[in-house]
Amino acid sequence: MTSGILYYAAPTPNGHKVSVFLEELKAAYGLEYEIKRIDITKGTQKEPWFIKLNPNGRIPVIIDHNRNDFVVFESAAILLYLQQHYDKENKFGFDKDTDPDNWSEMLQWIFFAHGGVGPMQGQANFFYNYATEDIPYAKKRYHEETKRLYGVLEIRLEDRDYLAGPGRGVYSVADINVIPWIRFYKKAGIESLDEWPHLKAWVDRSFARAGFQAGIDVLGKPL
Amino acid sequence: MTSGILYYAAPTPNGHKVSVFLEELKAAYGLEYEIKRIDITKGTQKEPWFIKLNPNGRIPVIIDHNRNDFVVFESAAILLYLQQHYDKENKFGFDKDTDPDNWSEMLQWIFFAHGGVGPMQGQANFFYNYATEDIPYAKKRYHEETKRLYGVLEIRLEDRDYLAGPGRGVYSVADINVIPWIRFYKKAGIESLDEWPHLKAWVDRSFARAGFQAGIDVLGKPL
Repeated sequence: MTSGILYYAAPTPNGHKVSVFLEELKAAYGLEYEIKRIDITKGTQKEPWFIKLNPNGRIPVIIDHNRNDFVVFESAAILLYLQQHYDKENKFGFDKDTDPDNWSEMLQWIFFAHGGVGPMQGQANFFYNYATEDIPYAKKRYHEETKRLYGVLEIRLEDRDYLAGPGRGVYSVADINVIPWIRFYKKAGIESLDEWPHLKAWVDRSFARAGFQAGIDVLGKPL
Repeated sequence: MTSGILYYAAPTPNGHKVSVFLEELKAAYGLEYEIKRIDITKGTQKEPWFIKLNPNGRIPVIIDHNRNDFVVFESAAILLYLQQHYDKENKFGFDKDTDPDNWSEMLQWIFFAHGGVGPMQGQANFFYNYATEDIPYAKKRYHEETKRLYGVLEIRLEDRDYLAGPGRGVYSVADINVIPWIRFYKKAGIESLDEWPHLKAWVDRSFARAGFQAGIDVLGKPL
């Protein structure tokens, strides 16, 4: 591959963020990309060649063959990078200079998810499914924090269709950045999304997009 | 106050990120700001008037009286907002359009800290100091993850003075975004920073700046 985006991927929530946006950009602009699967169950992402790409030893990572093989890690940084370089009409975001308030609101919700929903739901997921000791105190802590964070999104979505943008909002990388986490709510011990009707409708609304669904499907069965 | 930045603050790591940058901007450009202390031990940040500013019920939050009382929450989003509007010479960051690769690297390290160091060290802090049960398994998990994340920063800083920027790097909001966390390493059960000499030198280098130290001091005794 000498042009396009090379995407080191695995079917995890952070992996899906990037594959969803790549599929959206492919549908909207014809962006070319190629997926290289990383078997994170075998620790491939901790091998020296991968640490050179991302010292944190995690997917997702992209290499942009269109721009001198520039490397980007951290899921949200990848979304913002792709939005800057490949969404020239701002179909999935807001212009920093001409629309600075919507740009900032988009960032605020991206950081809310990146520092809140992702890591906290990730901990719930760990203590419910992977920890080698059963620790009710930790399960409860992260289960409840995940629910609280969903409640924050519910407040935001009460009179909106999407997290950022004027009026009822516009589908953007702020939404793409968090919905791939929420869809795994059952792994955090949450039985249904009925408690948050606006959040639930927003998840369904995003999945109804062909690009969103294609980005989930392209990585195959989730880990 | 009818102009300047109103800053709802508490002396926590996320609170210090913002006070450090406000002090740097005050020193560099004369930016005016005023601190309103929020007593987070009393839950003031969960009161309805505050939830209207930040539905997540957390400090830091700013209101920008210079720009129609625009509200910004999430520490890293505040740093990027202030950098956009009040660091017109890009003394503490990189231009998105003319310097897109350094801009992206700055974002990558901001997201690394915002989704990694902050939440994981925060969990170590909780299980070491505040949990109502002693849970060695959780202490060990977050202690080790915090050390691993410091190791990632150490790799990045081996041949650099700062996280982002050309050559040996340039002091930027990427550094301001994470050092206020690292200085509380003892609360995560870490005895010293000697294991990460480049990281330690970088922390000292930043604290040697008058603006950085002033931003820590201005909020008083840490919680």
